[in-house]
Amino acid sequence: MNFVIIGGDAAGMSAASRAKRNQPDLKVTVLEKTMDVSYSACGMPYNIADPGRAIDDLVVRHAKVFREKQDINLLTGYRAEKIDPVHKTVSGTSREGKNFEFSFDGLLIATGASPIIPDLPGFDLPAVMALKSLEDGRKIKQFIKSNAVKKVIILGMGYIALEMCEALRALQIDIDMIKPRPVFLPWLNGEMAQVVKKAVESNNVNLYPGKMVEKIEKSGDRLRVVCGDLTLEGDMVIVAVGVTPNSDFAEKAGIELGINNSISVDRRLKTSVDNIFAAGDCADAFHVVTGQKTWIPLALRANRGGWAVADNICGKETKLQGIAGTAVFKVFELEVAQTGLNLEEASNYGFEATETMVQTRSRAHAHPGSSTIWVQMVGDKKSGRLLGVQMVGQEGVAHRINAPAVALHNHMTVEHFSQSDLAYAPPFSPVWDPMLTAANQLLKKM
Amino acid sequence: MNFVIIGGDAAGMSAASRAKRNQPDLKVTVLEKTMDVSYSACGMPYNIADPGRAIDDLVVRHAKVFREKQDINLLTGYRAEKIDPVHKTVSGTSREGKNFEFSFDGLLIATGASPIIPDLPGFDLPAVMALKSLEDGRKIKQFIKSNAVKKVIILGMGYIALEMCEALRALQIDIDMIKPRPVFLPWLNGEMAQVVKKAVESNNVNLYPGKMVEKIEKSGDRLRVVCGDLTLEGDMVIVAVGVTPNSDFAEKAGIELGINNSISVDRRLKTSVDNIFAAGDCADAFHVVTGQKTWIPLALRANRGGWAVADNICGKETKLQGIAGTAVFKVFELEVAQTGLNLEEASNYGFEATETMVQTRSRAHAHPGSSTIWVQMVGDKKSGRLLGVQMVGQEGVAHRINAPAVALHNHMTVEHFSQSDLAYAPPFSPVWDPMLTAANQLLKKM
Repeated sequence: MNFVIIGGDAAGMSAASRAKRNQPDLKVTVLEKTMDVSYSACGMPYNIADPGRAIDDLVVRHAKVFREKQDINLLTGYRAEKIDPVHKTVSGTSREGKNFEFSFDGLLIATGASPIIPDLPGFDLPAVMALKSLEDGRKIKQFIKSNAVKKVIILGMGYIALEMCEALRALQIDIDMIKPRPVFLPWLNGEMAQVVKKAVESNNVNLYPGKMVEKIEKSGDRLRVVCGDLTLEGDMVIVAVGVTPNSDFAEKAGIELGINNSISVDRRLKTSVDNIFAAGDCADAFHVVTGQKTWIPLALRANRGGWAVADNICGKETKLQGIAGTAVFKVFELEVAQTGLNLEEASNYGFEATETMVQTRSRAHAHPGSSTIWVQMVGDKKSGRLLGVQMVGQEGVAHRINAPAVALHNHMTVEHFSQSDLAYAPPFSPVWDPMLTAANQLLKKM
Repeated sequence: MNFVIIGGDAAGMSAASRAKRNQPDLKVTVLEKTMDVSYSACGMPYNIADPGRAIDDLVVRHAKVFREKQDINLLTGYRAEKIDPVHKTVSGTSREGKNFEFSFDGLLIATGASPIIPDLPGFDLPAVMALKSLEDGRKIKQFIKSNAVKKVIILGMGYIALEMCEALRALQIDIDMIKPRPVFLPWLNGEMAQVVKKAVESNNVNLYPGKMVEKIEKSGDRLRVVCGDLTLEGDMVIVAVGVTPNSDFAEKAGIELGINNSISVDRRLKTSVDNIFAAGDCADAFHVVTGQKTWIPLALRANRGGWAVADNICGKETKLQGIAGTAVFKVFELEVAQTGLNLEEASNYGFEATETMVQTRSRAHAHPGSSTIWVQMVGDKKSGRLLGVQMVGQEGVAHRINAPAVALHNHMTVEHFSQSDLAYAPPFSPVWDPMLTAANQLLKKM
């Protein structure tokens, strides 16, 4: 039996490895268009921040290991271009210009997502870069080094933009950040977004929200980003305005797309076409709170999706519950995390949503080193259900968010959650954990 | 209506405050035998570690505030000695030797627990101390200062003993620790217990497990702890061999006791006698995993119990789900946490228990600052349920344990838990959080 996988990063290589573990005699072929497989894409900003580390440190498992130890037919530099679902073949072109065609019994599309590059003048200039593939990271790192970059303009203020901002500040690079919408972190509770904004600004970053880029121009050795009345100048531009699923050629093969043009899959990760699966950033997922489809491209679900596909390919039925949209990022001294729905999303999904936001302490009364922690919690007045939580703070946020994430998987009510027996010791939290304080406050509004 | 509360710490003062908030015209009387109320007992080791801080820093709310701002009849130095459940009175003696008697419509017994002091020669010497009340903390701190203590012998190796050990090492005091049972942290997975043991020893602490104390003797200005062939000498002895519920006089009033002589209460915190409630360290609780009674004296359930009693007294029925036994402590560079049942407990409760222990990393692949994290997970082969989790590590343990705690409240299966959408970013965890790695491993044994 031939299992063919298009894409050799998180979902693809997870699927390949697990399929071989499940069924050692399975023939597994991976077609990866770049020369890199199995790397920690999320680690790139942190690697870029440290000139002493090679970008290849981020490789989790080398191609050689997949090929020689795991007996996976891993083909790098192989760009898949066409799927024929009737004859069950994938064809394309290799880096050397050779045409190829592979037959499959089962196919996994794990093509990921690509950074959105606005179709505006100057975005094709060499010093305008996006960060998605390891090759992107390599180029950015090399460019900074070769050109002694002093000033970068970042387009976008999402979490990748903010992680890159922190990374570049660590290199003493000056930063301007710019984005079209006027609100900073619009998905975050307003008061909490202000806390994050202040932290970024206090690290000498210039923020220009509400500014629409018109074009990028050369200005001697530098670049000029023109946005109406505002013109910013820097050595380099990083475009981090979002990503879009790589689903074009799936669509051409007649595979159904869903939300945000991601490939629509069922709980087994099967697409609308038999024997063809999709996982990772190119595919959609069920949301455990709404039960409806969502598209949130994150690493854990890519890995988990790869495993599930491998199991289903090998006849061991695996259904995924779905995702809660749990995410965290670090920006300077702050941790910012969320799980589930925010107030606006909850209302849009028809919940009778209400929220509370508490500002409390990260450690016990009178314990040294305590800092402020902000917790926002959203509940449904009708069912009493917990719908989502957001947190900002200097410590304990990243791991704390996992408790409400588990609560969301269980459709727990706010009252039930408020009775959770959470850990307490003075160095780690007040007796009433900030999440319980938030739940107790929210209960009064329910 | 008269609401009388015996005991003015976590459960007692929580109940008093909430009752007044619920029903401002309620007459609330608190009888506290010491002169201290509402303090962070768990914070004492950390306070003792810092000679620059007064022990009274640990007072959360001063008696004056309860009396003047909250209109609570708070009587300190009032030792309750007898409950008459028929005539609904509590009587006792004040510090000035005055007899008192109060009538109640509702009574809360929140008398806490006392340190166990072995009935052996020398345990009444002035330099032999236990740590439970703020007054104990005051005495220990004063003694260390006045006597320029250089060496302390700690009896016991539980979490209070270990927290005190760390506190005293911060003061450059040498420590011997001794306990009768041969196994260090017997409730913890053996391999993980060794990790903690090594960390303690590497901080220049001498551990003597398996040694039974026979007596304590004076030796000039110092003390000698005699345990068969071993004799230890120090300036001070701290007894931290466990605590026992203060339930004697409840028993004398005909109130039913339960596990470990704690006062038996229902989900509303009512004792076997109408109108009499108990909460905090003196009372038992339901365990959410077993559904059976347990006695785990910890701060959060004391506060929560106090609130529940206040609600029930005020006619707003509140039932508590119970506890998961979630706990964490810090010892030197390590965080040690648990929730639910360990393997032995699970087997004793009739589960078909199996466990796994994984050793993984606290941060993402190639992320700087990563350290080892150990996760043990127990499941029930018959039902598939998750029964308990233990963790040890240098970071991220204390808050991480809350996710499986919430899972236990929901009777989640290991498989369901393994699908949890947990947060990931390189500074905080691998893509597969250590808990998910443990769950995935445990699933193979289920």
